[in-house]
Amino acid sequence: MTTGTIYGLGLGPGDPDLMTVRADRLLRKARHVAFFRKAGRKGQARQCVEGLIPEDAVEYPMEYPVTTEIPFTDPEYNRLLAQFYETCTARLVELARAGEDVVVLCEGDPFFYGSFMHLYMRLLDQVPVEVVPAITGMSAAWTATGAPITWGDDVLGVLMGTLPEEALVDGISRSDAVVIMKIGRHIDKVRAALRAAGKYEQAWLVEYASMPQQTVQRLAEVEGKVTPYFSIIIVHGKGRRP
Amino acid sequence: MTTGTIYGLGLGPGDPDLMTVRADRLLRKARHVAFFRKAGRKGQARQCVEGLIPEDAVEYPMEYPVTTEIPFTDPEYNRLLAQFYETCTARLVELARAGEDVVVLCEGDPFFYGSFMHLYMRLLDQVPVEVVPAITGMSAAWTATGAPITWGDDVLGVLMGTLPEEALVDGISRSDAVVIMKIGRHIDKVRAALRAAGKYEQAWLVEYASMPQQTVQRLAEVEGKVTPYFSIIIVHGKGRRP
Repeated sequence: MTTGTIYGLGLGPGDPDLMTVRADRLLRKARHVAFFRKAGRKGQARQCVEGLIPEDAVEYPMEYPVTTEIPFTDPEYNRLLAQFYETCTARLVELARAGEDVVVLCEGDPFFYGSFMHLYMRLLDQVPVEVVPAITGMSAAWTATGAPITWGDDVLGVLMGTLPEEALVDGISRSDAVVIMKIGRHIDKVRAALRAAGKYEQAWLVEYASMPQQTVQRLAEVEGKVTPYFSIIIVHGKGRRP
Repeated sequence: MTTGTIYGLGLGPGDPDLMTVRADRLLRKARHVAFFRKAGRKGQARQCVEGLIPEDAVEYPMEYPVTTEIPFTDPEYNRLLAQFYETCTARLVELARAGEDVVVLCEGDPFFYGSFMHLYMRLLDQVPVEVVPAITGMSAAWTATGAPITWGDDVLGVLMGTLPEEALVDGISRSDAVVIMKIGRHIDKVRAALRAAGKYEQAWLVEYASMPQQTVQRLAEVEGKVTPYFSIIIVHGKGRRP
């Protein structure tokens, strides 16, 4: 019997039409499909592939023991998540050793701030693992703004809204083009950092990039707005333009 | 008669299997296909779609009047390129106004350091334009290294090898994860900047990411190597890892 392969399958930003030809093919013939989700939810990744995976595929929801209930600086957060990733890994290894291929659904690009990497590092020395790259959420976000993100020699800085304010100010100031991800309840801090760096008026807020409920707004025009964690802020570069 | 649409079609990093489902569909029914190329070459973008576009599609190669023969700081460089983009735009507008859809082949993601954006800005107020995002070359490069590029709160800096050395040192020092593109004859300067920033030993050189001739090497292990302009250097981040 041949050991199965675990596929870290990038789904891209959400629109199934923006999945790769390879991802589409792997999904349509999948027999085992695993995905992360918040307890009690259907799961964003799972919803992306609705109607694409075979009806008789066996599904393995992997439910986070904690998301934002404990700050990630708490050692307990690390302990709970490490234990969770170990359990998920054991399950995937078991399936692969029984000869089964498993598709693990990954929102965005698996190696770019993804959750799959925590399984990947644990699976690596045990069973065959293959990562299928995908369009990042930020690509869909800058495409949605209808303007190029980077030109010529522009420096692009990609920053997480979870960073301390001074780190944000520093990163925004030193980049020509900026992408800020993981916004949600950090939006006021991000606004303050953009103001301090003199780039607030140029910033765009993109929600649900490439999905049916997508919105694109100037950040300065939606003061006080509550926005999801996966919203993306974009500041376009201004390099050489012959 | 309806005005045609100009599609800025992202092809992704090079492997046709990593194109989007949408790009694949648009290519297979394309009637007019335009693409940039260096004079006297077949064109990298055109080669990517070999066998995918219909045999009777009309092709419009757009040949750069200059690539690296004149430094881009020379006003003549700007003048020649601006004139070139104007001519290409006029041709595309003419086709669209005659009711034809045109697919413009774009390597990588069109809005991310692409050439199409120079046409896009000129087409925008004249005829319908649609941009199809794609996997960036850098995504394929970090996937090829077999290790995640960014974790947790990592700051990612994307820098061009064409930047002055001190700008490179500054950008590399202030980022956790680094991508350096447009390498070619800038490789010695890039090596020096990585050394000065203390990240030389962690750097990987990826050539032809996702293509059959792909190579992945530790930069420090290929001293003196001559590498193509489109090679990509990767320094992985080290964020939270539960």
